[in-house]
Amino acid sequence: MTRAQKGTVYLVGAGPGDPELLTLRAASLLETADVIYHDDLVSQEVLQLARATALVISVGKRCGAKRVTQLEINNKLIDSARRGLSVVRLKSGDPLIFGRAGEELKALAVAGTPCEVVPGISAAMAAAAALRCSLTSRDAASSVLITTGHHAQSPNAALAPTRVVYMPSSDLNEQAEKWLREGNSPEMPCALVSRVSQSGQTIFRTTLGELATAPAPVSPAVLLAGWALDQMHELGVLELQRAPREIELPTVPFSCE
Amino acid sequence: MTRAQKGTVYLVGAGPGDPELLTLRAASLLETADVIYHDDLVSQEVLQLARATALVISVGKRCGAKRVTQLEINNKLIDSARRGLSVVRLKSGDPLIFGRAGEELKALAVAGTPCEVVPGISAAMAAAAALRCSLTSRDAASSVLITTGHHAQSPNAALAPTRVVYMPSSDLNEQAEKWLREGNSPEMPCALVSRVSQSGQTIFRTTLGELATAPAPVSPAVLLAGWALDQMHELGVLELQRAPREIELPTVPFSCE
Repeated sequence: MTRAQKGTVYLVGAGPGDPELLTLRAASLLETADVIYHDDLVSQEVLQLARATALVISVGKRCGAKRVTQLEINNKLIDSARRGLSVVRLKSGDPLIFGRAGEELKALAVAGTPCEVVPGISAAMAAAAALRCSLTSRDAASSVLITTGHHAQSPNAALAPTRVVYMPSSDLNEQAEKWLREGNSPEMPCALVSRVSQSGQTIFRTTLGELATAPAPVSPAVLLAGWALDQMHELGVLELQRAPREIELPTVPFSCE
Repeated sequence: MTRAQKGTVYLVGAGPGDPELLTLRAASLLETADVIYHDDLVSQEVLQLARATALVISVGKRCGAKRVTQLEINNKLIDSARRGLSVVRLKSGDPLIFGRAGEELKALAVAGTPCEVVPGISAAMAAAAALRCSLTSRDAASSVLITTGHHAQSPNAALAPTRVVYMPSSDLNEQAEKWLREGNSPEMPCALVSRVSQSGQTIFRTTLGELATAPAPVSPAVLLAGWALDQMHELGVLELQRAPREIELPTVPFSCE
Protein backbone atom coordinates (compact mmCIF):
# COMPACT_ATOMS: atom_id res chain seq x y z
CA MET A 1 0.00 0.00 0.00
CA THR A 2 1.23 3.45 -0.94
CA ARG A 3 0.82 6.11 1.73
CA ALA A 4 -0.01 9.70 0.80
CA GLN A 5 3.16 11.77 1.30
CA LYS A 6 3.20 14.86 3.47
CA GLY A 7 3.41 18.11 1.51
CA THR A 8 2.13 16.53 -1.71
CA VAL A 9 -1.15 17.10 -3.56
CA TYR A 10 -2.70 14.10 -5.33
CA LEU A 11 -5.27 14.80 -8.04
CA VAL A 12 -7.23 11.59 -7.85
CA GLY A 13 -10.00 10.16 -10.01
CA ALA A 14 -12.87 8.87 -7.88
CA GLY A 15 -14.41 6.92 -10.76
CA PRO A 16 -18.15 6.82 -11.46
CA GLY A 17 -19.35 6.26 -7.89
CA ASP A 18 -19.08 2.58 -6.98
CA PRO A 19 -16.16 2.48 -4.51
CA GLU A 20 -15.04 -0.86 -6.00
CA LEU A 21 -14.23 1.07 -9.18
CA LEU A 22 -11.58 3.15 -7.43
CA THR A 23 -8.05 2.16 -8.36
CA LEU A 24 -5.94 0.48 -5.69
CA ARG A 25 -3.74 3.59 -5.65
CA ALA A 26 -6.68 5.95 -5.26
CA ALA A 27 -8.03 3.86 -2.37
CA SER A 28 -4.63 3.81 -0.63
CA LEU A 29 -4.26 7.57 -0.95
CA LEU A 30 -7.80 8.18 0.31
CA GLU A 31 -7.17 5.93 3.30
CA THR A 32 -3.98 7.76 4.28
CA ALA A 33 -4.44 11.43 3.31
CA ASP A 34 -4.70 14.11 5.99
CA VAL A 35 -7.16 16.23 4.03
CA ILE A 36 -9.51 15.50 1.12
CA TYR A 37 -11.03 18.22 -1.05
CA HIS A 38 -13.82 16.74 -3.17
CA ASP A 39 -16.36 17.73 -5.81
CA ASP A 40 -20.11 17.38 -5.33
CA LEU A 41 -20.42 14.40 -7.64
CA VAL A 42 -18.07 12.19 -5.62
CA SER A 43 -20.24 9.53 -3.97
CA GLN A 44 -20.64 9.21 -0.21
CA GLU A 45 -19.59 5.57 -0.45
CA VAL A 46 -16.25 6.67 -1.86
CA LEU A 47 -15.76 9.35 0.79
CA GLN A 48 -16.37 6.75 3.49
CA LEU A 49 -12.98 5.26 2.63
CA ALA A 50 -11.24 8.30 4.14
CA ARG A 51 -9.69 7.63 7.53
CA ALA A 52 -11.69 8.78 10.54
CA THR A 53 -9.30 11.62 11.41
CA ALA A 54 -9.05 13.05 7.89
CA LEU A 55 -10.53 16.45 7.07
CA VAL A 56 -13.09 15.86 4.29
CA ILE A 57 -14.07 19.14 2.65
CA SER A 58 -16.53 19.71 -0.19
CA VAL A 59 -15.39 22.32 -2.69
CA GLY A 60 -18.09 21.49 -5.20
CA LYS A 61 -19.67 23.86 -7.65
CA ARG A 62 -23.19 23.25 -8.86
CA CYS A 63 -24.81 24.98 -11.80
CA GLY A 64 -22.19 27.69 -11.62
CA ALA A 65 -23.19 28.54 -8.02
CA LYS A 66 -19.68 28.81 -6.70
CA ARG A 67 -19.62 28.25 -2.99
CA VAL A 68 -15.86 28.19 -3.38
CA THR A 69 -14.04 29.90 -6.24
CA GLN A 70 -11.40 28.13 -8.29
CA LEU A 71 -8.78 30.50 -6.89
CA GLU A 72 -9.81 29.56 -3.36
CA ILE A 73 -9.55 25.87 -4.20
CA ASN A 74 -6.06 26.39 -5.65
CA ASN A 75 -4.97 28.26 -2.54
CA LYS A 76 -6.42 25.64 -0.19
CA LEU A 77 -4.49 22.89 -1.97
CA ILE A 78 -1.22 24.83 -1.88
CA ASP A 79 -1.64 26.01 1.71
CA SER A 80 -2.51 22.55 2.99
CA ALA A 81 0.56 21.06 1.33
CA ARG A 82 2.77 23.88 2.68
CA ARG A 83 1.50 23.15 6.18
CA GLY A 84 2.93 19.66 5.73
CA LEU A 85 -0.33 17.81 5.16
CA SER A 86 -0.90 15.08 2.62
CA VAL A 87 -3.66 16.30 0.32
CA VAL A 88 -6.05 14.41 -1.97
CA ARG A 89 -8.01 16.47 -4.51
CA LEU A 90 -10.79 14.08 -5.45
CA LYS A 91 -12.71 14.49 -8.70
CA SER A 92 -15.44 12.20 -10.01
CA GLY A 93 -14.54 10.01 -12.96
CA ASP A 94 -11.09 10.78 -14.36
CA PRO A 95 -9.55 14.05 -13.16
CA LEU A 96 -8.28 15.07 -16.61
CA ILE A 97 -11.58 14.74 -18.55
CA PHE A 98 -13.90 17.73 -18.03
CA GLY A 99 -12.46 18.10 -14.54
CA ARG A 100 -11.02 21.61 -14.91
CA ALA A 101 -7.84 20.18 -13.45
CA GLY A 102 -5.72 22.37 -15.71
CA GLU A 103 -6.12 25.43 -13.52
CA GLU A 104 -5.22 23.49 -10.38
CA LEU A 105 -2.21 21.81 -11.99
CA LYS A 106 -0.95 25.17 -13.20
CA ALA A 107 -1.34 26.79 -9.77
CA LEU A 108 0.44 23.86 -8.10
CA ALA A 109 3.28 24.02 -10.62
CA VAL A 110 3.70 27.76 -10.22
CA ALA A 111 3.76 27.35 -6.42
CA GLY A 112 6.28 24.52 -6.71
CA THR A 113 3.97 22.14 -4.84
CA PRO A 114 4.75 18.47 -5.48
CA CYS A 115 1.82 16.78 -7.13
CA GLU A 116 0.78 13.56 -8.82
CA VAL A 117 -2.24 12.65 -10.95
CA VAL A 118 -3.97 9.31 -10.38
CA PRO A 119 -6.32 8.43 -13.24
CA GLY A 120 -9.86 7.21 -12.63
CA ILE A 121 -12.54 5.23 -14.44
CA SER A 122 -14.30 7.73 -16.68
CA ALA A 123 -18.05 7.65 -17.29
CA ALA A 124 -17.71 6.52 -20.92
CA MET A 125 -16.05 3.28 -19.91
CA ALA A 126 -18.34 2.75 -16.93
CA ALA A 127 -21.43 3.26 -19.09
CA ALA A 128 -20.13 0.86 -21.75
CA ALA A 129 -19.54 -1.74 -19.02
CA ALA A 130 -23.11 -1.26 -17.75
CA LEU A 131 -24.39 -1.71 -21.32
CA ARG A 132 -22.00 -4.64 -21.89
CA CYS A 133 -21.28 -3.16 -25.27
CA SER A 134 -17.89 -2.39 -26.82
CA LEU A 135 -17.43 1.27 -27.78
CA THR A 136 -15.43 0.20 -30.84
CA SER A 137 -15.81 -2.63 -33.29
CA ARG A 138 -14.19 -3.42 -36.59
CA ASP A 139 -17.48 -3.19 -38.45
CA ALA A 140 -19.19 -0.30 -36.75
CA ALA A 141 -16.92 2.28 -35.10
CA SER A 142 -13.16 2.70 -35.13
CA SER A 143 -13.09 5.73 -32.84
CA VAL A 144 -14.75 7.25 -29.78
CA LEU A 145 -15.60 10.95 -29.45
CA ILE A 146 -16.10 12.23 -25.91
CA THR A 147 -17.90 15.56 -25.58
CA THR A 148 -20.01 17.32 -22.99
CA GLY A 149 -23.45 18.86 -23.06
CA HIS A 150 -22.56 21.05 -20.09
CA HIS A 151 -22.40 24.51 -21.59
CA ALA A 152 -19.92 25.87 -19.07
CA GLN A 153 -17.45 23.30 -20.32
CA SER A 154 -17.85 23.92 -24.03
CA PRO A 155 -18.20 27.60 -24.88
CA ASN A 156 -16.64 27.00 -28.26
CA ALA A 157 -17.92 23.90 -30.01
CA ALA A 158 -15.61 24.66 -32.92
CA LEU A 159 -12.53 23.80 -30.87
CA ALA A 160 -10.70 20.80 -32.31
CA PRO A 161 -10.72 17.73 -30.06
CA THR A 162 -7.66 16.48 -28.25
CA ARG A 163 -6.63 13.47 -30.32
CA VAL A 164 -5.41 10.28 -28.67
CA VAL A 165 -4.11 7.56 -30.99
CA TYR A 166 -3.71 4.12 -29.43
CA MET A 167 -0.91 2.06 -30.93
CA PRO A 168 0.18 4.72 -33.42
CA SER A 169 1.78 3.58 -36.63
CA SER A 170 5.56 3.75 -36.57
CA ASP A 171 5.21 5.93 -39.68
CA LEU A 172 4.71 9.16 -37.75
CA ASN A 173 5.26 11.16 -40.94
CA GLU A 174 2.08 9.75 -42.45
CA GLN A 175 0.10 10.70 -39.34
CA ALA A 176 1.64 14.19 -39.21
CA GLU A 177 0.91 14.87 -42.87
CA LYS A 178 -2.69 13.79 -42.44
CA TRP A 179 -3.25 16.20 -39.56
CA LEU A 180 -1.44 19.03 -41.39
CA ARG A 181 -3.62 18.45 -44.48
CA GLU A 182 -6.65 18.78 -42.20
CA GLY A 183 -5.51 22.34 -41.48
CA ASN A 184 -3.85 21.91 -38.09
CA SER A 185 -0.97 24.22 -37.23
CA PRO A 186 2.60 22.85 -37.23
CA GLU A 187 2.83 24.44 -33.78
CA MET A 188 0.11 22.15 -32.34
CA PRO A 189 1.56 20.32 -29.32
CA CYS A 190 2.04 16.55 -29.51
CA ALA A 191 3.33 13.92 -27.10
CA LEU A 192 4.32 10.29 -27.44
CA VAL A 193 3.97 8.22 -24.28
CA SER A 194 5.35 4.67 -24.28
CA ARG A 195 4.79 1.99 -21.64
CA VAL A 196 2.70 4.37 -19.63
CA SER A 197 2.67 3.66 -15.86
CA GLN A 198 5.20 0.83 -16.28
CA SER A 199 8.93 0.58 -15.76
CA GLY A 200 10.55 2.06 -18.84
CA GLN A 201 7.83 4.68 -19.29
CA THR A 202 9.03 7.33 -21.72
CA ILE A 203 7.54 10.70 -22.66
CA PHE A 204 8.55 12.56 -25.81
CA ARG A 205 7.12 16.05 -26.23
CA THR A 206 7.06 17.65 -29.68
CA THR A 207 4.88 19.62 -32.10
CA LEU A 208 2.95 18.53 -35.16
CA GLY A 209 5.59 20.12 -37.41
CA GLU A 210 8.34 18.11 -35.74
CA LEU A 211 6.39 14.91 -35.16
CA ALA A 212 7.78 13.12 -38.22
CA THR A 213 11.30 13.39 -36.76
CA ALA A 214 10.36 11.83 -33.39
CA PRO A 215 11.89 8.44 -32.57
CA ALA A 216 9.54 5.55 -33.39
CA PRO A 217 7.66 4.89 -30.14
CA VAL A 218 8.29 1.69 -28.21
CA SER A 219 5.05 -0.33 -27.95
CA PRO A 220 2.67 -0.06 -26.26
CA ALA A 221 2.46 3.62 -27.06
CA VAL A 222 -0.07 6.44 -27.23
CA LEU A 223 0.19 9.56 -29.39
CA LEU A 224 -1.57 12.69 -28.12
CA ALA A 225 -2.11 15.89 -30.09
CA GLY A 226 -4.03 19.10 -29.53
CA TRP A 227 -3.96 22.55 -28.00
CA ALA A 228 -4.98 21.31 -24.56
CA LEU A 229 -1.44 19.90 -24.41
CA ASP A 230 -0.08 23.44 -24.53
CA GLN A 231 -0.11 23.41 -20.76
CA MET A 232 2.28 20.47 -20.87
CA HIS A 233 4.69 22.61 -22.90
CA GLU A 234 4.12 25.67 -20.78
CA LEU A 235 4.75 24.01 -17.44
CA GLY A 236 6.99 21.22 -18.57
CA VAL A 237 6.46 17.68 -17.38
CA LEU A 238 8.01 17.69 -13.93
CA GLU A 239 9.73 14.65 -12.56
CA LEU A 240 7.23 12.06 -11.43
CA GLN A 241 6.91 11.90 -7.65
CA ARG A 242 6.89 8.15 -7.63
CA ALA A 243 10.14 6.38 -6.99
CA PRO A 244 11.63 5.44 -10.35
CA ARG A 245 11.75 1.75 -10.98
CA GLU A 246 14.42 -0.02 -12.92
CA ILE A 247 14.15 0.83 -16.58
CA GLU A 248 14.33 -2.07 -18.97
CA LEU A 249 14.18 -0.85 -22.53
CA PRO A 250 14.01 -3.61 -25.10
CA THR A 251 16.78 -3.64 -27.66
CA VAL A 252 14.33 -4.20 -30.51
CA PRO A 253 11.10 -2.18 -30.35
CA PHE A 254 8.03 -4.30 -30.89
CA SER A 255 6.32 -3.28 -34.10
CA CYS A 256 3.59 -4.54 -36.36
CA GLU A 257 4.86 -2.75 -39.43
CA MET B 1 -13.91 -7.97 -1.16
CA THR B 2 -15.97 -9.45 -3.95
CA ARG B 3 -15.19 -13.05 -4.83
CA ALA B 4 -15.35 -14.26 -8.43
CA GLN B 5 -18.49 -16.39 -8.79
CA LYS B 6 -18.35 -19.94 -10.12
CA GLY B 7 -19.78 -20.30 -13.63
CA THR B 8 -19.37 -16.60 -14.43
CA VAL B 9 -17.05 -14.89 -16.92
CA TYR B 10 -15.68 -11.45 -15.94
CA LEU B 11 -14.33 -9.26 -18.73
CA VAL B 12 -11.88 -7.21 -16.73
CA GLY B 13 -9.77 -4.17 -17.62
CA ALA B 14 -6.18 -4.63 -16.47
CA GLY B 15 -5.37 -0.93 -16.90
CA PRO B 16 -2.11 0.35 -18.41
CA GLY B 17 0.28 -1.95 -16.56
CA ASP B 18 0.97 -0.59 -13.07
CA PRO B 19 -0.90 -3.01 -10.77
CA GLU B 20 -1.85 -0.08 -8.51
CA LEU B 21 -3.99 1.19 -11.38
CA LEU B 22 -6.23 -1.87 -11.26
CA THR B 23 -9.64 -1.19 -9.76
CA LEU B 24 -10.40 -2.71 -6.38
CA ARG B 25 -12.97 -4.92 -8.10
CA ALA B 26 -10.53 -6.09 -10.75
CA ALA B 27 -7.95 -6.94 -8.08
CA SER B 28 -10.51 -8.89 -6.02
CA LEU B 29 -11.63 -10.87 -9.05
CA LEU B 30 -8.03 -11.61 -10.07
CA GLU B 31 -7.22 -12.81 -6.56
CA THR B 32 -10.18 -15.20 -6.45
CA ALA B 33 -10.72 -16.49 -10.01
CA ASP B 34 -10.05 -20.11 -10.88
CA VAL B 35 -8.80 -19.35 -14.38
CA ILE B 36 -7.47 -16.21 -16.05
CA TYR B 37 -7.26 -15.79 -19.83
CA HIS B 38 -5.12 -12.76 -20.66
CA ASP B 39 -3.81 -10.79 -23.62
CA ASP B 40 -0.11 -10.30 -24.34
CA LEU B 41 -0.07 -6.68 -23.26
CA VAL B 42 -1.19 -7.43 -19.69
CA SER B 43 1.83 -6.81 -17.45
CA GLN B 44 3.51 -9.54 -15.42
CA GLU B 45 3.09 -7.40 -12.29
CA VAL B 46 -0.66 -7.52 -12.79
CA LEU B 47 -0.70 -11.27 -13.40
CA GLN B 48 1.22 -11.81 -10.17
CA LEU B 49 -1.95 -10.85 -8.29
CA ALA B 50 -3.59 -14.11 -9.37
CA ARG B 51 -3.78 -16.69 -6.60
CA ALA B 52 -1.14 -19.39 -6.65
CA THR B 53 -3.55 -22.16 -7.67
CA ALA B 54 -5.20 -20.25 -10.52
CA LEU B 55 -4.71 -21.30 -14.12
CA VAL B 56 -3.16 -18.30 -15.91
CA ILE B 57 -3.37 -18.72 -19.68
CA SER B 58 -2.13 -16.37 -22.40
CA VAL B 59 -4.48 -16.10 -25.36
CA GLY B 60 -2.66 -13.16 -26.89
CA LYS B 61 -2.41 -12.29 -30.53
CA ARG B 62 0.58 -10.34 -31.78
CA CYS B 63 0.82 -8.72 -35.17
CA GLY B 64 -2.02 -10.88 -36.39
CA ALA B 65 -0.06 -14.04 -35.58
CA LYS B 66 -2.92 -15.88 -33.97
CA ARG B 67 -1.68 -18.53 -31.63
CA VAL B 68 -5.29 -18.87 -30.55
CA THR B 69 -8.23 -17.90 -32.75
CA GLN B 70 -11.06 -15.72 -31.50
CA LEU B 71 -13.44 -18.66 -31.81
CA GLU B 72 -11.13 -20.76 -29.63
CA ILE B 73 -11.02 -17.98 -27.01
CA ASN B 74 -14.82 -17.73 -27.01
CA ASN B 75 -15.13 -21.49 -26.55
CA LYS B 76 -12.54 -21.59 -23.76
CA LEU B 77 -14.44 -18.93 -21.83
CA ILE B 78 -17.78 -20.70 -22.24
CA ASP B 79 -16.39 -24.16 -21.50
CA SER B 80 -14.56 -23.01 -18.38
CA ALA B 81 -17.70 -21.38 -17.01
CA ARG B 82 -19.79 -24.46 -17.85
CA ARG B 83 -17.32 -26.59 -15.92
CA GLY B 84 -18.19 -24.47 -12.90
CA LEU B 85 -15.02 -22.37 -12.79
CA SER B 86 -14.87 -18.65 -12.09
CA VAL B 87 -13.29 -17.06 -15.14
CA VAL B 88 -11.50 -13.74 -15.61
CA ARG B 89 -10.90 -12.55 -19.18
CA LEU B 90 -8.22 -9.93 -18.68
CA LYS B 91 -7.59 -7.24 -21.30
CA SER B 92 -5.10 -4.41 -21.06
CA GLY B 93 -6.53 -0.93 -20.50
CA ASP B 94 -10.32 -0.88 -20.69
CA PRO B 95 -11.94 -4.01 -22.16
CA LEU B 96 -14.43 -2.09 -24.31
CA ILE B 97 -11.98 0.23 -26.13
CA PHE B 98 -10.18 -1.50 -29.01
CA GLY B 99 -10.42 -4.74 -27.06
CA ARG B 100 -12.47 -6.74 -29.54
CA ALA B 101 -14.69 -7.64 -26.62
CA GLY B 102 -17.80 -7.48 -28.79
CA GLU B 103 -17.24 -10.93 -30.25
CA GLU B 104 -16.68 -12.45 -26.82
CA LEU B 105 -19.71 -10.74 -25.30
CA LYS B 106 -21.86 -11.95 -28.17
CA ALA B 107 -20.65 -15.54 -27.84
CA LEU B 108 -21.22 -15.49 -24.08
CA ALA B 109 -24.72 -14.07 -24.52
CA VAL B 110 -25.62 -16.65 -27.16
CA ALA B 111 -24.35 -19.43 -24.89
CA GLY B 112 -26.29 -18.00 -21.94
CA THR B 113 -23.12 -17.71 -19.86
CA PRO B 114 -23.40 -15.18 -17.02
CA CYS B 115 -20.93 -12.37 -17.49
CA GLU B 116 -19.98 -8.98 -16.14
CA VAL B 117 -17.73 -6.24 -17.49
CA VAL B 118 -15.34 -4.45 -15.12
CA PRO B 119 -13.96 -1.24 -16.65
CA GLY B 120 -10.26 -0.40 -16.55
CA ILE B 121 -8.04 2.67 -16.78
CA SER B 122 -7.59 3.29 -20.49
CA ALA B 123 -4.30 4.48 -21.99
CA ALA B 124 -5.63 7.96 -22.83
CA MET B 125 -6.27 8.76 -19.18
CA ALA B 126 -3.07 7.08 -18.02
CA ALA B 127 -1.01 9.06 -20.54
CA ALA B 128 -2.68 12.33 -19.56
CA ALA B 129 -1.85 11.56 -15.91
CA ALA B 130 1.78 10.91 -16.83
CA LEU B 131 1.86 14.23 -18.71
CA ARG B 132 -0.03 15.97 -15.88
CA CYS B 133 -2.09 17.65 -18.53
CA SER B 134 -5.87 17.85 -18.79
CA LEU B 135 -7.27 16.42 -22.03
CA THR B 136 -9.94 19.11 -22.08
CA SER B 137 -9.90 22.77 -21.18
CA ARG B 138 -12.36 25.59 -21.68
CA ASP B 139 -9.96 27.51 -23.91
CA ALA B 140 -8.33 24.75 -25.91
CA ALA B 141 -10.34 21.56 -26.38
CA SER B 142 -13.91 20.68 -25.47
CA SER B 143 -13.74 17.08 -26.69
CA VAL B 144 -11.47 14.05 -26.92
CA LEU B 145 -11.21 11.80 -29.99
CA ILE B 146 -9.80 8.32 -29.36
CA THR B 147 -8.61 6.45 -32.45
CA THR B 148 -6.09 3.72 -33.23
CA GLY B 149 -3.19 3.51 -35.63
CA HIS B 150 -3.39 -0.26 -35.59
CA HIS B 151 -4.64 -1.10 -39.05
CA ALA B 152 -6.33 -4.34 -38.05
CA GLN B 153 -8.60 -2.32 -35.79
CA SER B 154 -9.58 0.36 -38.28
CA PRO B 155 -10.21 -1.04 -41.74
CA ASN B 156 -12.66 1.73 -42.46
CA ALA B 157 -11.50 5.14 -41.31
CA ALA B 158 -14.74 6.61 -42.64
CA LEU B 159 -16.77 4.94 -39.90
CA ALA B 160 -18.43 7.50 -37.63
CA PRO B 161 -17.13 7.49 -34.06
CA THR B 162 -19.15 6.25 -31.12
CA ARG B 163 -20.25 9.45 -29.41
CA VAL B 164 -20.28 9.78 -25.66
CA VAL B 165 -21.78 12.97 -24.24
CA TYR B 166 -21.02 13.66 -20.58
CA MET B 167 -23.75 15.58 -18.75
CA PRO B 168 -26.04 15.79 -21.78
CA SER B 169 -28.39 18.75 -21.98
CA SER B 170 -31.89 17.94 -20.81
CA ASP B 171 -33.01 19.22 -24.24
CA LEU B 172 -32.48 15.89 -25.99
CA ASN B 173 -34.40 17.15 -29.01
CA GLU B 174 -31.70 19.73 -29.73
CA GLN B 175 -29.01 17.05 -29.56
CA ALA B 176 -31.00 14.65 -31.74
CA GLU B 177 -31.66 17.29 -34.39
CA LYS B 178 -27.99 18.22 -34.52
CA TRP B 179 -26.95 14.61 -35.15
CA LEU B 180 -29.73 14.13 -37.72
CA ARG B 181 -28.62 17.29 -39.55
CA GLU B 182 -25.13 15.80 -39.68
CA GLY B 183 -26.57 12.98 -41.76
CA ASN B 184 -26.91 10.25 -39.15
CA SER B 185 -29.70 7.73 -39.60
CA PRO B 186 -32.75 7.87 -37.31
CA GLU B 187 -32.09 4.16 -36.77
CA MET B 188 -28.71 4.84 -35.11
CA PRO B 189 -28.73 3.24 -31.64
CA CYS B 190 -28.56 5.51 -28.57
CA ALA B 191 -28.48 4.89 -24.84
CA LEU B 192 -28.88 7.10 -21.79
CA VAL B 193 -27.15 5.85 -18.64
CA SER B 194 -27.79 7.67 -15.37
CA ARG B 195 -25.92 7.23 -12.10
CA VAL B 196 -23.72 4.60 -13.65
CA SER B 197 -22.33 2.04 -11.20
CA GLN B 198 -24.30 3.57 -8.32
CA SER B 199 -27.54 2.65 -6.62
CA GLY B 200 -30.33 3.96 -8.80
CA GLN B 201 -28.42 3.27 -12.03
CA THR B 202 -30.82 3.45 -14.96
CA ILE B 203 -30.35 2.49 -18.62
CA PHE B 204 -32.66 3.74 -21.36
CA ARG B 205 -32.10 2.30 -24.83
CA THR B 206 -33.46 4.11 -27.86
CA THR B 207 -32.59 5.28 -31.37
CA LEU B 208 -31.63 8.69 -32.71
CA GLY B 209 -35.10 9.09 -34.24
CA GLU B 210 -36.75 8.45 -30.86
CA LEU B 211 -34.17 10.19 -28.68
CA ALA B 212 -36.18 13.40 -28.35
CA THR B 213 -39.00 11.48 -26.65
CA ALA B 214 -36.73 9.88 -24.01
CA PRO B 215 -37.28 10.94 -20.40
CA ALA B 216 -34.84 13.66 -19.30
CA PRO B 217 -31.93 11.80 -17.75
CA VAL B 218 -31.29 12.01 -14.03
CA SER B 219 -27.87 13.55 -13.37
CA PRO B 220 -25.13 12.47 -13.51
CA ALA B 221 -25.85 10.98 -16.92
CA VAL B 222 -24.07 9.93 -20.09
CA LEU B 223 -25.58 9.79 -23.57
CA LEU B 224 -24.07 7.28 -26.01
CA ALA B 225 -24.79 7.07 -29.73
CA GLY B 226 -23.38 5.09 -32.63
CA TRP B 227 -23.56 1.87 -34.58
CA ALA B 228 -21.26 0.02 -32.19
CA LEU B 229 -24.22 0.10 -29.82
CA ASP B 230 -26.15 -2.10 -32.24
CA GLN B 231 -24.86 -5.06 -30.30
CA MET B 232 -26.60 -3.69 -27.22
CA HIS B 233 -29.89 -3.76 -29.14
CA GLU B 234 -29.20 -7.13 -30.68
CA LEU B 235 -28.36 -8.92 -27.45
CA GLY B 236 -30.33 -6.80 -25.06
CA VAL B 237 -28.85 -5.60 -21.82
CA LEU B 238 -29.12 -8.59 -19.55
CA GLU B 239 -29.73 -8.15 -15.86
CA LEU B 240 -26.58 -7.12 -14.08
CA GLN B 241 -25.01 -9.97 -12.15
CA ARG B 242 -24.30 -7.80 -9.17
CA ALA B 243 -26.79 -7.81 -6.35
CA PRO B 244 -29.09 -4.83 -6.78
CA ARG B 245 -28.73 -2.23 -4.10
CA GLU B 246 -31.47 -0.08 -2.77
CA ILE B 247 -32.62 2.38 -5.37
CA GLU B 248 -33.06 5.96 -4.25
CA LEU B 249 -34.34 8.07 -7.10
CA PRO B 250 -34.57 11.77 -6.31
CA THR B 251 -37.96 13.32 -6.70
CA VAL B 252 -36.53 16.33 -8.53
CA PRO B 253 -33.87 15.58 -11.14
CA PHE B 254 -30.81 17.77 -10.79
CA SER B 255 -30.48 20.03 -13.82
CA CYS B 256 -28.45 23.03 -14.88
CA GLU B 257 -30.98 24.22 -17.41
